[in-house]
Amino acid sequence: MDYLSSYRNRPVLITGGLGFIGSNLAHRLLALGARVTLVDNLLPDTGWHPANIQDIRAQVRLILGDIGDASVAEDAVRGQDIIFNLAGSISHIDSMRQPLMDLDANARAHLVLLEAVRRINPAARVLYAGTRQQYGSPQYLPVDENHRNLPNDINGINKLAGEWYHRIYQRAHGLATCSLRLTNTYGPRQLIRHPRQGFIGWFVRQALLGERITVFGDGRQLRDLVEITDVVDAFLRAGVSESAWGQVFNLGGKPVSLLDIARLCVEISGRGRVELVPWPEDRAKIDIGNVYCSYQKIHSSLGWRPRTPLRAGLQRMFDFYRREAARYLEPPDPQSLPGR
Amino acid sequence: MDYLSSYRNRPVLITGGLGFIGSNLAHRLLALGARVTLVDNLLPDTGWHPANIQDIRAQVRLILGDIGDASVAEDAVRGQDIIFNLAGSISHIDSMRQPLMDLDANARAHLVLLEAVRRINPAARVLYAGTRQQYGSPQYLPVDENHRNLPNDINGINKLAGEWYHRIYQRAHGLATCSLRLTNTYGPRQLIRHPRQGFIGWFVRQALLGERITVFGDGRQLRDLVEITDVVDAFLRAGVSESAWGQVFNLGGKPVSLLDIARLCVEISGRGRVELVPWPEDRAKIDIGNVYCSYQKIHSSLGWRPRTPLRAGLQRMFDFYRREAARYLEPPDPQSLPGR
Repeated sequence: MDYLSSYRNRPVLITGGLGFIGSNLAHRLLALGARVTLVDNLLPDTGWHPANIQDIRAQVRLILGDIGDASVAEDAVRGQDIIFNLAGSISHIDSMRQPLMDLDANARAHLVLLEAVRRINPAARVLYAGTRQQYGSPQYLPVDENHRNLPNDINGINKLAGEWYHRIYQRAHGLATCSLRLTNTYGPRQLIRHPRQGFIGWFVRQALLGERITVFGDGRQLRDLVEITDVVDAFLRAGVSESAWGQVFNLGGKPVSLLDIARLCVEISGRGRVELVPWPEDRAKIDIGNVYCSYQKIHSSLGWRPRTPLRAGLQRMFDFYRREAARYLEPPDPQSLPGR
Repeated sequence: MDYLSSYRNRPVLITGGLGFIGSNLAHRLLALGARVTLVDNLLPDTGWHPANIQDIRAQVRLILGDIGDASVAEDAVRGQDIIFNLAGSISHIDSMRQPLMDLDANARAHLVLLEAVRRINPAARVLYAGTRQQYGSPQYLPVDENHRNLPNDINGINKLAGEWYHRIYQRAHGLATCSLRLTNTYGPRQLIRHPRQGFIGWFVRQALLGERITVFGDGRQLRDLVEITDVVDAFLRAGVSESAWGQVFNLGGKPVSLLDIARLCVEISGRGRVELVPWPEDRAKIDIGNVYCSYQKIHSSLGWRPRTPLRAGLQRMFDFYRREAARYLEPPDPQSLPGR
């Protein structure tokens, strides 16, 4: 497929490069022959982990710094063809507890990065990782890109601002920007050590350890899950497609209930158990009910569709964490990174 | 009218208190017997001016500081019944040139203020000054509160984030917040010394000085103008109305063309002239065409409607600036403020 071969020898930057999606994308880009730079600020409680790049460390340029720092951003974007801008914090819960951290990570940092691109490397392509959280409570299902944006939490507001900065820089300054609005992504290298970055990593952890998976309410809330391989494929397609510039695209998948996901985790793991519990107050306040997204637009424009069945994806994830649990259950140690 | 008498002896805070709307609101609140605290950070190029409070300086508590500084915000909100949160930068042009300044003034500062209210004074009512700029290019006219939000510039994004933080703090933390989405406000104490805070102040300045008023394109772009007395009345109504909490309300008025507004300025002033010129590139990129807003919702809920005819309002504004031009044509001097 042509879009894959076009990455050979291309200089690419991944912000949030030590994170879940960034590190998986890095592995794939290296396999495609790209010249990969990673930048990461090692923000506490987010998904970065030294183990995420343990097997590619020698093949990438690694910048340990914050793209919210203009000098770091300028250094990072210089000379890049394609910038996968995945840095940020995705915890809804943390955003309510530390709203200024969330603002800095999800809004301010992107404005600094875009300013750096505008000044230093305006020909670069910039791919942003948006989120279906931007839509807030669905007015209709599946949620498409024309759905109103009305986030239910601080994280959703700041993620949306971050995306819209990309749109304005495309419109007013001519940058080639595009946003993929991700739904629930899962797979190897995902954070599983605390429950504040989405439910899937936590379900997997609990089943892996033979512990209780608690599901809120009746467990019938529908979500769509997209396996990391498919998410990486979407970024690869969008990164080299001119028809993507100035666009936003949903990713999406087949809706499945939280209870069914939890049961599948227990079944695959062969351990753990599922328990329904009442909604905790702070979660209920920012919950958004059933939500799943239409991927018709990116299918029509870029030929993308989710290809990994949920069972196969979860099986792959459990296989990974059975090997790697010891590393991923503990907080990462910054000292284990080069230059630290 | 009852809502006016309820301000007697009430401790109220106005952020951006030295600005156009803040200072007019302060005058009115003092006349109603309120105990008024003003906080202002004297952000360059925004609407603050020592002359705006020259005749009430002895009657207010004045805090010169930035509500984006948590200690200033905490000091300011302590003990207040009602907080009119009007601080910010409203220049679309400046936001494109200094996006981080705009982010700090319009998003970050409000998050810091709301955190201070949540921690120190959660019973306070918080009124936010939103803007119809949040809607972006109108999909239909008049624009009502259900219109999608899709801002066309950095200022619109950050103002929207600021408003939505207020919504989330109402929803998740129970704060009594409300946003009034202002359209083009005009009147005495408005910034007239540079053209980057809306067209009206600049039209008035040019007519006052007998200079050329340039109108972009064919001048038929429709806008609705609301005189400052009416805007102040809307804040006074919303500030003491329980039905306002958790709501957003448009202000709005009768649509009129930019060319007609310019001609009216020249007619009232008896000086100046109007000239149509082609769109400058940077303006064209962020222009939003015809726009005027429905005020049906606030009329139904709070009884508000615009009462000042455009001709009478502009007449009052010219009367003010004929007396005060010398002060307002020059940049303000921070040294003339107490404690500086």
